[in-house]
Parts: sequence; structure tokens; C-alpha cells
Amino acid sequence: MGKLPIVRTRAALRREIGVWRSERLRVAMTPTMGALHEGHLSLLRLAATRADRVVASLFVNPTQFGPGEDFQSYPRDESRDAALLQAAGCDLLYAPPVEEMYGDGFATAITVSGVTAPMEGAARPGHFSGVATVVAKLLIQGLPDVAVFGEKDYQQLQVIRRLTADLDLPVEILPAPIVRDPDGLALSSRNAYLTPAQRAVAPALYRRLIEVARAVAGGAPIAAAETAGVEALLAAGFDAVEYFEFRDPADLARLGPGSISGPARLLAVARLGRTRLLDNIAVAA
Amino acid sequence: MGKLPIVRTRAALRREIGVWRSERLRVAMTPTMGALHEGHLSLLRLAATRADRVVASLFVNPTQFGPGEDFQSYPRDESRDAALLQAAGCDLLYAPPVEEMYGDGFATAITVSGVTAPMEGAARPGHFSGVATVVAKLLIQGLPDVAVFGEKDYQQLQVIRRLTADLDLPVEILPAPIVRDPDGLALSSRNAYLTPAQRAVAPALYRRLIEVARAVAGGAPIAAAETAGVEALLAAGFDAVEYFEFRDPADLARLGPGSISGPARLLAVARLGRTRLLDNIAVAA
Repeated sequence: MGKLPIVRTRAALRREIGVWRSERLRVAMTPTMGALHEGHLSLLRLAATRADRVVASLFVNPTQFGPGEDFQSYPRDESRDAALLQAAGCDLLYAPPVEEMYGDGFATAITVSGVTAPMEGAARPGHFSGVATVVAKLLIQGLPDVAVFGEKDYQQLQVIRRLTADLDLPVEILPAPIVRDPDGLALSSRNAYLTPAQRAVAPALYRRLIEVARAVAGGAPIAAAETAGVEALLAAGFDAVEYFEFRDPADLARLGPGSISGPARLLAVARLGRTRLLDNIAVAA
Repeated sequence: MGKLPIVRTRAALRREIGVWRSERLRVAMTPTMGALHEGHLSLLRLAATRADRVVASLFVNPTQFGPGEDFQSYPRDESRDAALLQAAGCDLLYAPPVEEMYGDGFATAITVSGVTAPMEGAARPGHFSGVATVVAKLLIQGLPDVAVFGEKDYQQLQVIRRLTADLDLPVEILPAPIVRDPDGLALSSRNAYLTPAQRAVAPALYRRLIEVARAVAGGAPIAAAETAGVEALLAAGFDAVEYFEFRDPADLARLGPGSISGPARLLAVARLGRTRLLDNIAVAA
């Protein structure tokens, strides 16, 4: 097996995809910021079941990081990532430099209102505009038939669904389930920041999500269950709980305070030191 | 000759264009808001010289009109427009209803900074975001090889060039020169709002643009020439001059106050009653 082909310009990306198009092959794309783990690779494998060729992009997008966030220190190891991608069935890696994505005089931003307002949007001003703009660019550059995004960043997934519908991007957005360590911790590139002591506390987040979701699915009032969830996480050793909320799975409107009446999503961010752990689960009514 | 085919959904638009694509035909698109005049038809004819098939869109876009502007009263006559388009060589009319362009829960906006700030952007808050969003949607829906926009709305043309470059839209933006009445008045759907007395004053705008541009090209200082231009227009009977400015032809940065040192664009808006007349000309250094 040769090395995974890597292209660094949108022109080269379009040339490669154009060859596949001329052979009437179906193309999938999985945008990533690198620092790949089993969660990303599951997206690649899912993509491969839905297309003839799979392109991964690797671009640590500066515009979705806020001041003081970890853009500079975000883990980068392209040759490791390329080897993992190839083993997972990737056919082409698109890894553009920043100048290729944001040329001289770049001045355009895409904003999505509504779904971007709470949770990550409130905690990270400008984050979702950065995400929406770069994802739209990548999808317009590649024009894949299908693009795969993980449910780990569930709010981001809903932003991307809204964006692609609103801008008429001719692509199917395919969600991929969260991949977890055996103890339940959702995989994340930022888990590498955890100390061993923090890592020991971390799995409690998923356990509480399951427990509280089960209580609410069984008829417990939402507001009280959310409060109990936050308290349980603080008792388990988390330093702060930024949110722990039942929301509409599509438009992310807040649910409660009473009993659940339809499908919901329970989304949470809990902090260990400076590391924010995101997780979420589906809640059956 | 049969009637011009009209489609009303992006799915039908894509189906028709898809047939052409399968025949390897080159496709041009000319977005319009209807109320067609010879200026629009010149875009169509230019498009036909650069492509095998020409699609015109007709959509009076509500999001680019401000409160108190003429969205409700904007002239609409689709069957007249369709006949004119067909005679000018149009192959397909795309005339979507508002619900097709802005579906339930629509929440996405595209903004361009820099070129949108002065002139029309300052006079009409939100206008260019409405334009950028709808043009991006139309170009993504049709994915034409080339799209034609008139130089009459010169600032809009620069916004669209910036937008398509920044979002990597795979389309060539082709500018079309301003079409004028024999007395020099630039054609505009809004000229229909002019009274006979106002219509008699209107051609002075173009005459002053030529005169002032010639003076500056000959070495006159820009700021003084602009002031003289404004005064001449008020003396000619215009009710107000919103701007009359030499600007960089690409990024629209203001030029002056001294002599010109490179190519420029002279752009003006003068009002007759409530009607804003826009015009502009290229200035050779």
C-alpha cells in the first residue's frame, strides 16, 4: 500500500474529485482538525459505507478559536494522522495551509442564528461563525455527495445541518454516533490535556447523563433532574458544570421545567481544571 | 418558438442544468429581480456569448430591502419579463417563490466586511448581507460556470466578487457595462418612479460624472473635484447628493484628497424626490 495522497490546494482537491466524478463515483468528505482518535476514524469508516471514495480534510481553523483558547497549542501531527486515515479507508487527504483557506483581503463570514445562541455559542463568541464559514468553504470546495460529522459536537452538527439546508449545499449531512473509551468517556482530542487524577473523574459525566436521562424518560420533571445532575457532577469531582440541559434535538430550544413530551437531547459541559469536557445523549420520550 | 421554460424549485433547476451538464454544455446564470430593461437584456446577451445555455433568475429578494423601502411596490410582471428574456436568448427562467428560497426556520446570513461599509452599505443597513446571502444561494443552487452582473451596481459587483472568492464558489463573475438611454441616463427599474420633470434633470448625473472624471484624470485634485461635482448636481436640480466619490476600483477605499495615481472608479448617488439614482464610471489615471 502506497502512502495516502495529500493535496494542499482547492484546485488540486477539485482535480482529484473531478477524476472520480468522471468515473461516476460517489464521494464522501469528513472534515477534521487532525489530532485524530478512534472517534474520527469511525466517521471515516461510516463515510466509506456510503460512498465510493472518502476525502478527509485536516485544517486547524484559526477563526473558530477565541482569544486565549488553544489554537497555538492544539495537537498537530500530520504524518501520524495520515497513516491513521489511510488505515481507516481514506482515499485522499486535503490539508490546506491557512493562506489557501483565507487569502489576501478575506472578508466574508457566515452566521447562523438560533441554534448557535446557547451553550457553546454563549461560551465561545464567534466560534460557530468560524465553524460555519470554514465548513461551508470545505463543502463548496469539494462538493461531496455526503459529509460526516460526529454527534460528540452535537450543537455543531445542528449548526451545520441548518447551514447546509439554508445555503442549499447539495450534500447529505450524516451524523456519526459518539465513540467512547471502555469506561464511557467520550473520545476527544482535548482529553490529552487531562491529568491522571482528572482522567479518573471524567467518566462520571457520561454516567450522570445516562442516569438523569433515564429519570426524565421515566417521568421526572426536567428542571429538578438537571439540578440533581449538576450537583452529582460537582460531588463527583468536577470543578464546574457550565451547562447540563435538556433541549429539543433539532432547534435546541430549552425543554422543561416539567415532564418530557417528545424526543430530546441532554447536553452537558463539565470542567476539570481548564479542560472542558463535552458530552450528550439522546433521550427517548 | 415555444414559451420560455420556467422552473420554481431548486430541485427542478438542478434537474434542467444536470441535463445540460450531462451533455457537457457550459452554463451561464444572470440573477435579476425582474422589471427587466435593456440593461438586464445586455447581461443575457453577454452571457450567451460565454456559455452554451443561459439561465436567468427572477426573484425579488425581500431580505435586501430595508424597512420603508419599495419591496411591496417593486414592479413585477413575470410574463412580460419571460418574453423579453426569451427574445434575448435565455434558455430557462428560474422564478422561485419566497418559501422556496427561505424555508421554515431559515437562520443563515452571509456578511462581507470592507467593501460593504461605505456608500450603499452605509445608506442601506443589511442590504448587502441580503444580497450576499441570496446571490450565494442562487450560485450554489445552479452552480453555473459563469455569472453576469451589471456594473450599474458597481459596489454590489465588488461585494459579489469578494464573496465568490472567499467562499470558493466555482464560478467566474463577469461584469457587464452600464446600458444608458440616448441622453446618458443609466437604465434602472426605478427610473419608472421619476416624474417627467425629474426625468429631464436625471441625465445631468452622467454628464457631471464624465466632466469630473476627466478633470481628475487630467490632474485636478480629487477632493476639490468631488465638491465641485456635488455643487453642479445640486445646481442642475437634484434634491440631494448622497455621495460623489473617487474610490479604488477593487476594494473601494476612498481616494484623494490630492491627484489620482492609478485606476479609480467615480461613484455617485443623487436623489430626485425619493428616488435614488445610482451611477458610476471608470477613471483612467
